[in-house]
Amino acid sequence: MNNPSPSSQLFTDVPFWAQLATPQPGWVWLVGIGPGHVGLLTLQAIRALQNADQVFHDTLMDERLRQLAPNAVWTDVGKRGGAASPKQIEISEALVNAARQGGRVIRLKGGDPFIFGRGAEEVEAMSRAGVPVQVVPGVMVGVGGLAAADIPATHRIHNQAITFLTAHGPDGALSADLDWSALARLPALVVYMPMKHRQALAHQLIKQGAEPETPVVLVGCATTPKQWSHRISLDALAHDSLENMGPGPVILAIGHFAAFPETVSLIAPLFPSGET
Amino acid sequence: MNNPSPSSQLFTDVPFWAQLATPQPGWVWLVGIGPGHVGLLTLQAIRALQNADQVFHDTLMDERLRQLAPNAVWTDVGKRGGAASPKQIEISEALVNAARQGGRVIRLKGGDPFIFGRGAEEVEAMSRAGVPVQVVPGVMVGVGGLAAADIPATHRIHNQAITFLTAHGPDGALSADLDWSALARLPALVVYMPMKHRQALAHQLIKQGAEPETPVVLVGCATTPKQWSHRISLDALAHDSLENMGPGPVILAIGHFAAFPETVSLIAPLFPSGET
Repeated sequence: MNNPSPSSQLFTDVPFWAQLATPQPGWVWLVGIGPGHVGLLTLQAIRALQNADQVFHDTLMDERLRQLAPNAVWTDVGKRGGAASPKQIEISEALVNAARQGGRVIRLKGGDPFIFGRGAEEVEAMSRAGVPVQVVPGVMVGVGGLAAADIPATHRIHNQAITFLTAHGPDGALSADLDWSALARLPALVVYMPMKHRQALAHQLIKQGAEPETPVVLVGCATTPKQWSHRISLDALAHDSLENMGPGPVILAIGHFAAFPETVSLIAPLFPSGET
Repeated sequence: MNNPSPSSQLFTDVPFWAQLATPQPGWVWLVGIGPGHVGLLTLQAIRALQNADQVFHDTLMDERLRQLAPNAVWTDVGKRGGAASPKQIEISEALVNAARQGGRVIRLKGGDPFIFGRGAEEVEAMSRAGVPVQVVPGVMVGVGGLAAADIPATHRIHNQAITFLTAHGPDGALSADLDWSALARLPALVVYMPMKHRQALAHQLIKQGAEPETPVVLVGCATTPKQWSHRISLDALAHDSLENMGPGPVILAIGHFAAFPETVSLIAPLFPSGET
């Protein structure tokens, strides 16, 4: 799949490129960059980056994105496990300050800005500060990342619903606001940031009636060259130490949909390594 | 937001463009095109189209996509209300035949191919026929389309879960396989293809304990120049004839998240009309 492209024509073949909006001075754009692979960037995300003065990003990001805005100021505001990392209020203040100085400010978000990325909180903060804000949706990690692990998010026969949730409540503990007995009765769950509370949530779901043999898949670094996956059962998740897992970020799929029986590799060849 | 772009450099500024995979003869690619606006196309989707021999698409599609593959054979396999439309098995057969003739075959899907788009069924059909298949994830209508209606899909404080479901079961009736009492206890629902069964599902949710005053938003033609939205309550949805709604496709958001209080327009200015 890595042969030279039969088409070497590039954006000159995208006649509507000039019709896309661009960031204005003093605005903040929250831009989703998808699950990781640069091929899943949207045109609008590229357009935003190419016109950015300041870019605020998280630690886990394909370094090739910098090539889209080589003259912008790039600031890493990622949460770093163990190391000091800016608090959400500090990130919002930095965005507001950059915008008030007249910058075209881009806040990059993994996946989609509104799926467990604190995008709504950042919109609220910009709104309070009177800073105009725009959002560029992105491909969800919980859908595109699962596809890269050969798992279709829905199937007309098997699951007509899919639920995405975060295992972390606002206080960092396992979400107490979620109705685990309701979740246990749903056909397909995808858990973001599952690792810290994986055993507690597996116990909760089993206690609330989920079958212990329910298939479970952990997927890490989805769509990137470091992608890995691990297929177990809900019961094993509750009891497995999972000591030899790969690096994060990780998503966790729970339900029979996670054991899609096809043997085709759905996405992997699409995503050549950034090192090639 | 529609000023001429400060940057007129185009794909020459995307140095990793040449590293993206391209379709091979005899393969079928299922390619998500996002909720509607061409700015939400991914690089990989454009790459696929530029190298396509045959493109199978649904009826509702921005006509500008044709400009990306002017020499390909384009076939509309969309479901047309009232008019004769190909059955799923016929679509799968057409894909298989085109691939067996050595074509580079692209099947375009609104939103993401695996979110209620029968993508999993098409993968199964290709697999049975021995046709290799690849999937390019896309921006979901239920996330990007809601953002265009100023609704963040999740909020760290208010909803740590979001559920996407289709109102149509495999037999076309309101999904009987779904556990409506569980759904009624979830904080945020997004219903695909809601119009036919909207009153039945609203009655079901209220019967199962959902508050009648739960905010509800209908969004049609999200992210396109024809976008409209209508904000009511779950109780009103159960009883409203909704005779003056705009054209589809429509998504339906149910939950307090659908009444996001910010007054900023999150996306609309991003999406200039195709007519400009």
